[in-house]
This record gives sequence, structure tokens and C-alpha cells, in this order.
Amino acid sequence: MNASIALPAGFRAAGVHCGIKRDTDKLDLSLLVSDRGAVAAGVYTTNLVFAAPVGLDRARTPGSDIRVVVINSGNANACTGPKGDADAKEMARLAAEAIGAKAEQALVLSTGVIGFYIPMENVAAGVQAAAKKLGDSEDHIVGAARGMLTTDTVHKVAARSIQIGGRTIRLLGFAKGAAMIGPRMATMLGAVLTDAPLTPDVAQAALRNATEDTFNCITIDGHMSTNDTVLLLANGAAGGSPLANAELEQFQHALHEICAELAKAIPADGEGATHLVTLDVTGCKTREDARVIAKAVCESALVKTAIAGADPNWGRIVSAAGYAGIPFQPEGVSLWVNDIQLYKNGAPVPFDKPVASRSIRENRDTRILLTFSEGDARIRFWTTDLTAEYVRLNADYTT
Amino acid sequence: MNASIALPAGFRAAGVHCGIKRDTDKLDLSLLVSDRGAVAAGVYTTNLVFAAPVGLDRARTPGSDIRVVVINSGNANACTGPKGDADAKEMARLAAEAIGAKAEQALVLSTGVIGFYIPMENVAAGVQAAAKKLGDSEDHIVGAARGMLTTDTVHKVAARSIQIGGRTIRLLGFAKGAAMIGPRMATMLGAVLTDAPLTPDVAQAALRNATEDTFNCITIDGHMSTNDTVLLLANGAAGGSPLANAELEQFQHALHEICAELAKAIPADGEGATHLVTLDVTGCKTREDARVIAKAVCESALVKTAIAGADPNWGRIVSAAGYAGIPFQPEGVSLWVNDIQLYKNGAPVPFDKPVASRSIRENRDTRILLTFSEGDARIRFWTTDLTAEYVRLNADYTT
Repeated sequence: MNASIALPAGFRAAGVHCGIKRDTDKLDLSLLVSDRGAVAAGVYTTNLVFAAPVGLDRARTPGSDIRVVVINSGNANACTGPKGDADAKEMARLAAEAIGAKAEQALVLSTGVIGFYIPMENVAAGVQAAAKKLGDSEDHIVGAARGMLTTDTVHKVAARSIQIGGRTIRLLGFAKGAAMIGPRMATMLGAVLTDAPLTPDVAQAALRNATEDTFNCITIDGHMSTNDTVLLLANGAAGGSPLANAELEQFQHALHEICAELAKAIPADGEGATHLVTLDVTGCKTREDARVIAKAVCESALVKTAIAGADPNWGRIVSAAGYAGIPFQPEGVSLWVNDIQLYKNGAPVPFDKPVASRSIRENRDTRILLTFSEGDARIRFWTTDLTAEYVRLNADYTT
Repeated sequence: MNASIALPAGFRAAGVHCGIKRDTDKLDLSLLVSDRGAVAAGVYTTNLVFAAPVGLDRARTPGSDIRVVVINSGNANACTGPKGDADAKEMARLAAEAIGAKAEQALVLSTGVIGFYIPMENVAAGVQAAAKKLGDSEDHIVGAARGMLTTDTVHKVAARSIQIGGRTIRLLGFAKGAAMIGPRMATMLGAVLTDAPLTPDVAQAALRNATEDTFNCITIDGHMSTNDTVLLLANGAAGGSPLANAELEQFQHALHEICAELAKAIPADGEGATHLVTLDVTGCKTREDARVIAKAVCESALVKTAIAGADPNWGRIVSAAGYAGIPFQPEGVSLWVNDIQLYKNGAPVPFDKPVASRSIRENRDTRILLTFSEGDARIRFWTTDLTAEYVRLNADYTT
């Protein structure tokens, strides 16, 4: 089901440098444009302190007549008060105007430093330049993907092409990661474009379903951003009536795959990270219980430093589960790291420590399986290890 | 009200090396002994995965006839199953026997590596040696304090002497910190001795009150230990009837001061820490709201790395508050770091960044004041910064 990287029908994209970032090699503004009104859905940060673009997009989604998403990196337009709100609105108007749409047909994504007003002259020039460069080649896609990055080391796109009832339906997703450096804030942004026909409510539900098991299951340091946003734009250019029932299930499956691929790419590119950790928590009473336990384990500095040091320190994992606040029988807990069992039914089991340590040290991927005896619910989480390099990157900004 | 470091009447103490730790320079077993049955209260970790000594002590407190607390460092006796429970019970019996008490008159505290059976031969020899060394000099106190340390760099004791109704009442507290290295687990242990006469219920309530605002307001990395325990032993040797009303209030105040002094000493000696951060959260609807917000800020890796880097990065602090899950008006939030206002009523204020940065860099103590407009509740938290050295210390154990 993997597809070559291509835009769905009726979409164009571009990325430019307009001076929001100082480094002229780095793109900092992108446009994603649909040639017709697209259904748009969004899921957003639940941080009470949310950025201006989040407020704007939240009011416009789910919606049915969106033509353009304007994205900038280098400035989050967060904690900027009423002027920030006005700037986000003006940014949307400029983008809409540049492609011949109405002001309210635009959405905005911003990422970067918190607490500074966004330089609107640069934005205005960038929007003009990007509108002139729009196209549907792979170069255009990569440009748009690069324009949304901050300290990510690689751009992140994922594509699927599926056959539904005789139609070819394409999906293309973009994401930027929770990379942080200096004054910048962890921010996760994503946008998935599709030519599938969807109603607004169906699009919103499909996106929420997909993010639940993907973007909501990653954590770098547990610090929820002011800007986190994932958008889905569905312009219906593939033709036919809105997807429902079995057709919708096919679409949901592809959307889920794209979101999972992009979500996993974020900790894989985490700042200073030397391991991508995949944690499966199983045997819980409810999925929410599994989620809370997984989050506690994935956010423990002690667990993450142990992985960085290739230390099969199961006590840190088990005790993190123990303080998550979810009741469980300690004697029903077992643990495996890279398929080596370290803990069985609440007691240590003998294992070959050098072998276990080597399996962590020599693989960038670390798999942890933590099982309980409360029920059948499970969840999969992805996180990074915690290295001295992460600390250096986030501490060594001084004014 | 500060007192020279002295044991309350009727108590003796000792610390020895018995080989639980390899390094013969390091003490690893202590006894705290009362010459008469003491009222004992305890507060414990709420981790579902709790160590064997926690289970034993929990069953024996509050109680009224405790003679001895035996403490070891270097092995946490945690995640050790039924054999661990039996070992803790035997350790209590050995300590009681060594001082001529009954088996059930002893409490046990353990700290150190998780998941290994405690070497009982060493414990038995250590208990015998310590019982022979018991005394009430400052050397004895320091020995007992050192016997409970793991990677702490300094021992932690605090004393108060108060006059209550013509009696001199002494309190002496011991603590060990949340220092972690290699396979060892963050563990906070504390014991406060007093010659005040208290009933078990009053002792338990007094200890719970005192820990609520002190030991429960510190965090290094948010990883709750399997062994956290604070005990209060009150042997009544100061004479008179059990404290109540105004006399009890006087005692509570002194107990609170001791616990605060010891609690603050723990992050001050945090592993790899270069700053002790004191965070005041004010203007919340409830104290619990303030606590949840303070915890989110104090446990944010981004906030802690910013402090390490002397970066007055208020966006990280405000956004951490925003994801704590407590409702508040963003436009009612203001923030000061070292008395310099960085954020006012939900918007940035101009400030001299080099000056703010220098004030963080040049002071080991960093004060953060975060104010809300929801009510009058407040809390004070203490934490450390997060340095590359912390990561190294916790990652660079390899098997």
C-alpha cells in the first residue's frame, strides 16, 4: 500500500525562505493549496496556553470550504496576546488572497520560538513567493515539508494510494517533529492531504481516530506544546460521493498508516536521541489505563537514561508503572526488553546481563513489552532515550 | 529555634559498614534506638510497587511501642517477592534482639539497588556491630546519618529544641536524598526522633501534616521510588502528658521546620544539579490545583534544562502550567524569575535578557514565582535543574 510520494489530485504545494529564520539555507514558509474547497478537520493541543493559529484553525474546523494552509517555522506565534491573534488572521488573509480565495478559506500553522511577534513583512513576502512557486512535483512536496521544520534533521512525509470502488484515492501526510533547541518549543505539526470525498464530520472523526493511536502515543519529554496541530484536508478530487461504511474503513486504515508512519518518525528524529523506544503495554483493564502506564514509563528520566546507557534496568520500568496511579496486581507484572525476559510475575528472573545490555547498545530500536494481568486492553507508545546531548541542546542557549 | 545537633532524651544511634556496599569507606547500616517504647508514625510511598520494608513498617505504624529503627543503604529490598518480605521481617527481629527488644518493636528502612536479595549475613553482622557502638554524641548522629546515604554527597540532619509548658522538647531529623546512580533507584528516606510525649494518632497526623508541605513538595525527576518513607519516633522522655492544643501546635511548627529543612536539602544535593529551584505557585483555586501545576513545571525537562543553561525561557514555564490539566485564565498569568518579571497578564513584558540570564547563572538558588487569578491557594515546591551530568550519572552504568 506504500505509494511513491505524490500529491493527491487537485493539490499543489511550495516552500520558500522568507527570513523568519536567519539561516538563508532553511525554508521557513510553506503553502498547501487545494484547487477547490476542501473539507478540513483538525486536532489540536489541549494545552490551555495555546498559540494564535490554534485558535484560528479550531474555529474553522471541521469545515468544508478550505483552499489553503499557510505554514511557517521559526516563530510559534504563541503567548503573543491579541496582537498574535490579529497576526494569525492577517496571515490567513494574505495566503487566501495570494491564491485567489476568500480570507476565511485559509488555515494557519506556526512553529518555533514562543513569545515573539511574528514578522509580518516577511510572512507577506513569503506568501507571495510561495504562491508563485506552487506545483505538484516531488521537489514541491519536499519544499513544503522542509518549510515546516525547526530542528528536525530530516523532513517527514508519508504517502498511500488506495483503490476504493474503482477510484484511486491518494493520501499525503506532512509532519514536523518535537525537536527543541535553544529558545524553541517542542512542537508537533502535521497535515494530511487527500483527494478522497469526505463530509466534514466524517473527516473529523477519521482524523481523531487516527491520531488517537499514533500522534497521541508519542512522547519525547512529556512537555505538551502550545502549537500541536494535525490537519486533514479532503478535496474530493478523486470524484464520487462521500466515503461511508466499508469504503470509509479502507480510507481510515490508510489514514491510520500514514499517521503512524509520521508519528514514529518524530521520536526517531528526537533531539540527541540514540534510541527509538517502542513500548507495548498489554493486559490492562482499559485502554486508558494502558495509556497512563505507558506515558509514565516513557516519560521517566530514569528509564530513558537507562536506555541511553544500554542498562537493562527493569526496576526503573516496573517502578514507573507503579506510580502511574493505575491499580494493578504487582505479582501479575512481567517485562521483556528486546525479547529478553527480565521480570516475571512480580519477581526478578535470572538473565544474561551482558547479552541484554549489548542488545540495547547495538540496536537503535529498543522494544519493551510490559504485561499486566488485569484484562485485555493494550497500547503501543514510542519515545526516545534521554542523552547528555539532549540536555546540551536544550540548555546551551543563553541570551 | 535552631538547635545544635543533639539526640532527644532517651535515644541512641550508630552507623557502621557491614559490606552491603563494596566501598569500605562508606557506612551502610544504622540503628536508631529508643530506651523505652516510642510512639511511631510513618508516611510511605504510594507506588503500587513498594519495597518489603515499606510493607512491614506500614503494618506497624501508627504504633506505640517501637524501640529501634534499623536502616541499610546499598540494597532497597524492593521487587524481591516473598523472600524479600521474610528478609525484612528477619532484619527487624535481628535489630530488636540486638538491643533486647521484642521482634515486633522494630521498624526497617532500606535504600539502594532494586531487585536483589539483601545479603542477610552482612545485615546480621552489621546489626551486632552497630548495637555495640550505640551512643548519643554528635559522632554517633553523623554515623547514623551516613549509614543511610547512597549517592548523596552530604549527610542530612536537622534539629530543633523548643520549650513547651516548662519542658524542653527536642527533635532530630535524618534524611537521605533522591540521588541516583547506576542501578540504584531514587529513594527518599527520613526519620525524625523526638522526646515529646505524643499519642499514636496525634503523631501520625502531625507527621502527615508536616510531610504534606515539605517532603511531598520536592521532585528531582518525578520518578516515585519504591521505598520512600518518613518515620516519626516520639518516646515521651521529655516527660508530661501527651501534647495537645497549643502545645501540639508548637510541636507541629517545629516538626514542620525540620521536615522543610531536610526536604530542601534533598534537591539541593540532587545528582548533577547546579541549581536549587524554589517555585512558588500562587492565586490558584485550591492548594491541590497549585500542587498539580507546580509538579508539572518542576518536572518539565525543558524548564529544567533552561535553568541549567541560565536561559530565562518563560515560554517553557507557562506552557508547562498550561498542560497540567488545571483550568485557569491564561490572561491572568504572570511570572517572575529571581524577582525579574518576564510575563504579565498573559503577555510578554520587555526585560533585560542578559541581566536575567546572569542572575540565574551566578546564583545556585533560582526563585520562580508563577501567579494565577483563580483564588488564594498557593504552594511552594523545590526541584533541581537538569544537567548533562545527571544524564551521565544515570546512563553510564553498563553491566
